Amino acid sequence: MNFSSDTSAPAHPKVLEAVLAANSGLESSYGNDRVTRCLRGQLATVFGTDDFDYWLTASGTASNALALSCFCPPTGAVLCHAGAHIAVDERGAPEFFSGGGKLHLLRGPDGKIGPAQLDEALARINHDFVHETPAHVLSLTNLTENGTAYSVAEVTDYAARAHASDLIVHLDGARLGNALVSTGASAAEMSWQAGVDVLTFGLTKTGAMGCEIILLFGKAREKKRELEARAKRSGHMPPKMRYLSAQAEAMLADGLWLDLAAQANGMARKLADGLVARGVSLAFEPQGNEVFAMLPDDQVTALRAAGAVFYPWMGGSQRFVCSWATEDTKIERFLSVLDA
Amino acid sequence: MNFSSDTSAPAHPKVLEAVLAANSGLESSYGNDRVTRCLRGQLATVFGTDDFDYWLTASGTASNALALSCFCPPTGAVLCHAGAHIAVDERGAPEFFSGGGKLHLLRGPDGKIGPAQLDEALARINHDFVHETPAHVLSLTNLTENGTAYSVAEVTDYAARAHASDLIVHLDGARLGNALVSTGASAAEMSWQAGVDVLTFGLTKTGAMGCEIILLFGKAREKKRELEARAKRSGHMPPKMRYLSAQAEAMLADGLWLDLAAQANGMARKLADGLVARGVSLAFEPQGNEVFAMLPDDQVTALRAAGAVFYPWMGGSQRFVCSWATEDTKIERFLSVLDA
Amino acid sequence: MNFSSDTSAPAHPKVLEAVLAANSGLESSYGNDRVTRCLRGQLATVFGTDDFDYWLTASGTASNALALSCFCPPTGAVLCHAGAHIAVDERGAPEFFSGGGKLHLLRGPDGKIGPAQLDEALARINHDFVHETPAHVLSLTNLTENGTAYSVAEVTDYAARAHASDLIVHLDGARLGNALVSTGASAAEMSWQAGVDVLTFGLTKTGAMGCEIILLFGKAREKKRELEARAKRSGHMPPKMRYLSAQAEAMLADGLWLDLAAQANGMARKLADGLVARGVSLAFEPQGNEVFAMLPDDQVTALRAAGAVFYPWMGGSQRFVCSWATEDTKIERFLSVLDA
Amino acid sequence: MNFSSDTSAPAHPKVLEAVLAANSGLESSYGNDRVTRCLRGQLATVFGTDDFDYWLTASGTASNALALSCFCPPTGAVLCHAGAHIAVDERGAPEFFSGGGKLHLLRGPDGKIGPAQLDEALARINHDFVHETPAHVLSLTNLTENGTAYSVAEVTDYAARAHASDLIVHLDGARLGNALVSTGASAAEMSWQAGVDVLTFGLTKTGAMGCEIILLFGKAREKKRELEARAKRSGHMPPKMRYLSAQAEAMLADGLWLDLAAQANGMARKLADGLVARGVSLAFEPQGNEVFAMLPDDQVTALRAAGAVFYPWMGGSQRFVCSWATEDTKIERFLSVLDA
Repeated sequence: MNFSSDTSAPAHPKVLEAVLAANSGLESSYGNDRVTRCLRGQLATVFGTDDFDYWLTASGTASNALALSCFCPPTGAVLCHAGAHIAVDERGAPEFFSGGGKLHLLRGPDGKIGPAQLDEALARINHDFVHETPAHVLSLTNLTENGTAYSVAEVTDYAARAHASDLIVHLDGARLGNALVSTGASAAEMSWQAGVDVLTFGLTKTGAMGCEIILLFGKAREKKRELEARAKRSGHMPPKMRYLSAQAEAMLADGLWLDLAAQANGMARKLADGLVARGVSLAFEPQGNEVFAMLPDDQVTALRAAGAVFYPWMGGSQRFVCSWATEDTKIERFLSVLDA
Repeated sequence: MNFSSDTSAPAHPKVLEAVLAANSGLESSYGNDRVTRCLRGQLATVFGTDDFDYWLTASGTASNALALSCFCPPTGAVLCHAGAHIAVDERGAPEFFSGGGKLHLLRGPDGKIGPAQLDEALARINHDFVHETPAHVLSLTNLTENGTAYSVAEVTDYAARAHASDLIVHLDGARLGNALVSTGASAAEMSWQAGVDVLTFGLTKTGAMGCEIILLFGKAREKKRELEARAKRSGHMPPKMRYLSAQAEAMLADGLWLDLAAQANGMARKLADGLVARGVSLAFEPQGNEVFAMLPDDQVTALRAAGAVFYPWMGGSQRFVCSWATEDTKIERFLSVLDA
Repeated sequence: MNFSSDTSAPAHPKVLEAVLAANSGLESSYGNDRVTRCLRGQLATVFGTDDFDYWLTASGTASNALALSCFCPPTGAVLCHAGAHIAVDERGAPEFFSGGGKLHLLRGPDGKIGPAQLDEALARINHDFVHETPAHVLSLTNLTENGTAYSVAEVTDYAARAHASDLIVHLDGARLGNALVSTGASAAEMSWQAGVDVLTFGLTKTGAMGCEIILLFGKAREKKRELEARAKRSGHMPPKMRYLSAQAEAMLADGLWLDLAAQANGMARKLADGLVARGVSLAFEPQGNEVFAMLPDDQVTALRAAGAVFYPWMGGSQRFVCSWATEDTKIERFLSVLDA
Repeated sequence: MNFSSDTSAPAHPKVLEAVLAANSGLESSYGNDRVTRCLRGQLATVFGTDDFDYWLTASGTASNALALSCFCPPTGAVLCHAGAHIAVDERGAPEFFSGGGKLHLLRGPDGKIGPAQLDEALARINHDFVHETPAHVLSLTNLTENGTAYSVAEVTDYAARAHASDLIVHLDGARLGNALVSTGASAAEMSWQAGVDVLTFGLTKTGAMGCEIILLFGKAREKKRELEARAKRSGHMPPKMRYLSAQAEAMLADGLWLDLAAQANGMARKLADGLVARGVSLAFEPQGNEVFAMLPDDQVTALRAAGAVFYPWMGGSQRFVCSWATEDTKIERFLSVLDA
């Protein structure tokens, strides 16, 4: 009954098969290998466009920070939610990679930036007022840190507002698959078609060993060379890159990533329904693979005693994360502890 | 006949077996997994001490830069050879991770810092002279970028001089196994016993997919928490760290890393002997898995035409790198092209 | 009727006399001159202690950022009020100087950090939780950006809480004189005796041309060499430093700085009283040389038309800043516009 | 007999007169004052063009580092002489301001970059080779650190080579006046007409209290906003900027800066001639206000005993710096010590 994080799950067997298959013969280093080059076709299919560039890292923190650092200068700021992963959980990686840029933290319910908050922040941007740090990037997270999903309409709306203020739009998609499954949107609809310029496309939490893809869409592609230079400089250009790319290849093939996301979402739905049926209220509407439940202390204690693993969250809820590897029987056992 | 780099080689099958074996069940994230914790015992055996801490990354550049940044403040400098990997091949990673520290480049033949150059640099350190940047770290590379090896006596001597000036001693051991096999020294003798405070212990070039271990010895262990914070902040704390650690486990088990290094060294020796027997002079004495040959242009052309892959090096030589995967028959074919 | 800022005022004539007096003969560069060295005695008298070190810059932003960067590592954070100068008005200087450290913004009325907010922030510090950035410094501002003053008791209380969590306490005293005059506290009582470890002692707004003194008290003195190295590295070690020091000499002599602060405070009091007498409500209780008035739009328009210069502030008030050079007659004329 | 540095000299009386004259009335802060704005006209006259932007700081280190940081990205490098002030005497300021950029040190006699060294460095630039750091800026120093001057022809030639490789050309003109007087060139000829894109125009060593002007010429002007943001962020936007600008105003009026430079050069010439006449050989041909003499130890001792102040230089020479304040009688007395 380990609901601590989707990063606790192992990788899907197909991911390891692909890694194994890539482990043959000599290959060019640093991303010039065949496996990495072949990804372009798969990504083009997934995103329904050829107008992109990509880079892979093994870390979501690295991918976010690299992506942001290409668009936020040291003298600039990134707008993001106060609870965003880049703000709370990355030990200052955006500040480090950007050379001392700032995050401007915005509020809003359910882990989503409020529209009024966004507008107010955009209105304050004044590149001629040298004392304050102007925003250059809007960073959204989908799935949010509260397990909720921005709809395509919301992302499109926010991106349009940001673009109107000459901001670049970044999407932290560490759990993009979960958001897509939940909203029914395609990868294209939720990214470049909605106005996303640069995407951190996470596959680690979905089922890879460690594989995140940074995608630059359209005009953002002019940062390709800078992205690679920054990747090299930060140690995110592994010599034997084929092993990263093989993971992506496996995850993208036949929509495995979406299947695994759907499976994780389904488990979370089952858990949420079970909790609600037992009178437990949820802090947020579950729209992905995470459930935030307002559990009374005695139930928390009982669940822990029964071996359940989960973390308390800000605001008094408990967070439960399901993954592709979460088993039906574990959910059932969890709920039976509650029944007891 | 690909002699471009040892990073072109695949990983040894045992490495993938270990990764596969680690891919089961839920595990704690970010280095708290069982595989990562178990490495301590193996490392203690390899280095003959318990007085160390360690961290793993998938990148030699990251490992070097993280290690250096814990000991070189933004206002300080690192002494290294002018041809060192950290100076030439890492796109400014040490400067980035240290927050703008400097590299002071020293000369010396065969890729090794000259003793007089070291002494001169050490003599110039004056922490009271605020205008110049004082050195805080001496970084040695073994195997050097020219395929030569520092002996244990040399490392010990240099480390003692550096310590006498209150410097920390870093060893870039991207090809440590090759240097150990060549010099006959043990890992302990070449590292902490010789005065090395912080080691980048490379396994990628030796035969892993991507696995480098940073080791802090003795007093340097006080930087453990800072090292982890910097690793997190730079995206070098992968959530599913077990896959990194499993590689190390396989490489260290039964001395596989030394066997593979020996195999690579043997191929390089065979290649070197073959070249010399054919009248080709070598730019440096091969003491590892690299051969630098002064080949006439027509031979370079002939070899390339025959499909050989290798890079020109500074000083007019051509570099040939052997790995654990270099085949005997490729060396023979290479030499037969020369004969023709 | 220029109430835009106390930085709009010229320097006091005695400051220029001292600069003129210093302009004779050859002197050692970079702070080794006699004028700079002589400051020690004056500062010892003002602060009632010998247990300090000091450095001068011409910029409050530089002084704050240099001070903070000596105590907040790149992986750490500074606690400050959401409206603090270091957060809002310095274009990311703390992030730049610290190498990408963070500011954790705390709320509280009247420009002061709320005690509960401070306690909550202190309680969250966990150096063992690598993902979040722990606070290393508490930065208070006195006079605050809202023209209010922390009492000695408040600073003492906050510093004690911060010290209990192993934080260093920084005081941004860009308007320290105004706060001292207003609270009746001595420089010693408001700084090291209250627990302040590092002080930015501003004299520019009080009446100098450009002169801010960084003081390290007690244990913080161990950062003296680092402070100087960082000052040099950031261009804040002017070769002819005597001209900076001469300004400080003049301001400190015979308590000129306190006299000028009292004069500015008196003008602000007169302005505030005049406004209140005319039915204008104040956004904050004026405890220094700044008045924040809730003026109706028509009065704002009328005042501007009459030539008054002042800036709108967050929250809907208008800010009026008095300086040592603010003339009685200008206040009277201002109020007469309101009467009309 | 203080020949330690031209920064030991006081400011010229006219500089202080101008500062005094500026000290009247309220003024806009942060560079929007009348004195600062009026400088444009003077600078246009001095440089014979309107196609420039400018910013002032009180520090040559700051001006150099700010200028370089606008053109050298964190992933890039600056080419400069191994003995350049930015490389040796600024405690890593360029690395700090650029966010970890590199200096590539070039050799060449007499403190000047050798043409072959420059060509070799330019030839190595390869933006497609991600591992090495490509140069973005060529930084020349005139007067050089060895007291020699680049001719207009040399600067023009070097700038053309740099431009052909898409580099920006920076000139560190801390002693520009001395070089102009010595070469007979105009400010325009030695700067933008020769291809200089960004100039650090030093007036401190020439006779100001502390005043250096950064000039962006032509296309480089597109960095104006960035330059100001970086100036603010690094504490180099003093609120009462009029005092900086007043210094420039005085120095530029009626060519005072050139007169003072000529005076300093004349003293150096007298000193050099006196030394040569006494059989002392010079390490470099004096082409400005600095003399590097190969003095035997006993003469060094005798001079020091007689009260002369000067510093030993790399290569075994002694450095003597004259300023506008160097007195004829001091040169004579110095030479008489040698005679005795």
